[in-house]
Amino acid sequence: MLESIRIVMIETTHAGNIGAAARAMKNMGLQRLYLVKPRSFPHEEASARASGADDILQNAVVCQSLDEALVGCRQVFGASARSERSLPWPIITARDCGEQIMARFAGQEVALVFGRESSGLTNEELERCHQLLHIPCDPGFSSLNVAAAIQVVSYELRTACLQQQQVGSEAVESGGGDVLISAEELERLYQHLEQTMVQVGFLDPDNPRHLMRRMRRLFQRARVEQTEYNILRGILSAIQKYQP
Amino acid sequence: MLESIRIVMIETTHAGNIGAAARAMKNMGLQRLYLVKPRSFPHEEASARASGADDILQNAVVCQSLDEALVGCRQVFGASARSERSLPWPIITARDCGEQIMARFAGQEVALVFGRESSGLTNEELERCHQLLHIPCDPGFSSLNVAAAIQVVSYELRTACLQQQQVGSEAVESGGGDVLISAEELERLYQHLEQTMVQVGFLDPDNPRHLMRRMRRLFQRARVEQTEYNILRGILSAIQKYQP
Repeated sequence: MLESIRIVMIETTHAGNIGAAARAMKNMGLQRLYLVKPRSFPHEEASARASGADDILQNAVVCQSLDEALVGCRQVFGASARSERSLPWPIITARDCGEQIMARFAGQEVALVFGRESSGLTNEELERCHQLLHIPCDPGFSSLNVAAAIQVVSYELRTACLQQQQVGSEAVESGGGDVLISAEELERLYQHLEQTMVQVGFLDPDNPRHLMRRMRRLFQRARVEQTEYNILRGILSAIQKYQP
Repeated sequence: MLESIRIVMIETTHAGNIGAAARAMKNMGLQRLYLVKPRSFPHEEASARASGADDILQNAVVCQSLDEALVGCRQVFGASARSERSLPWPIITARDCGEQIMARFAGQEVALVFGRESSGLTNEELERCHQLLHIPCDPGFSSLNVAAAIQVVSYELRTACLQQQQVGSEAVESGGGDVLISAEELERLYQHLEQTMVQVGFLDPDNPRHLMRRMRRLFQRARVEQTEYNILRGILSAIQKYQP
């Protein structure tokens, strides 16, 4: 699932960062590097820092514009050092980005765009992105090296991919599906749970305390899958119909 | 919670890697760097790559042995490139390491040890570690740069710390606790759930299918907290006593 992901570096100044990015990518199983107007490439410093990931450098696609690097992409994520922007742009963490790509864009062409060492992405470039991607840094020192950022994001992609494979193989093993439920289904589950809790006398509608909020947090965190949802709804229906 | 964590680099050959590690650490809110017999330190290449994280380099503790670097540590994790070893050593992922430190060793002195660029940790050094720490890499190219490895681990530590703070503040907000339940409690929850499913007629003990296995996976993933556990057990007890 990692084959359809491209890493795009824009106007990288230091060739060493390109090499370090290639090494980071190859370690995490990513292959496709796009370079928009790199200052010096190919360059011996890139090869030195790639430290064996030469194939990624050799196959890197050098482009004259970001548009050229994004041809064919279904979804574009732009890395941003700031967690909020004046632009009203959807922004997600690196972790959510990995999970989202595996859940929603698996096998589709996806680009992750990284800006200049000094100044990141321009507003025009950000507008070419569907979502922004943020790596949580210390508020007092938020200045990740571009290759380090690519390392973290590639690592999250690989981890999300491995988790997906694991869930998939466990699902096959247990005869279930591995599709996450939709937000609407999740709401239906909460309603059903609440009704059932009221019916059996556990939840007092006049004094609900924080019971539903806690249950929401639990199931939100769990990322409920379709088969699990069916089981939970089935249990709740059985309770509602239950006659001792 | 990140103040009590030290990063230990053993016999680092390239000063640039020390600088890059300092930058990675500072971005993630880590401060304490220990260097065991670095080949060249201080060094201009370290300062250049630190790119503003000079305080970490200035405060770095240079040691003559690993033992010296580990004085006072309650738990020691050693980074290993291999996911399995001939040594029968407990091995966990970087993600689990971050979560474990926050859950079990918060505020206690913890060390994360990274070996030489060329050859990692010796067996003697590994034996000084309580657990090994592994970053999942592509099996065909498992050769992370040491500063890149420190970047990934520091990122996981920061992410685990932020999650912990979030869970904590939500718990305070909702009046609940944020302590994860024990394995025994989790087993009691499964037993209680199974009994209840049987009682309401949803689970046929003669034909259990994979229902409990699916429920186990769901709650395992969710990492149930104490307050949530109390609510779930309360719901199940209410169902068992329920008389329509």
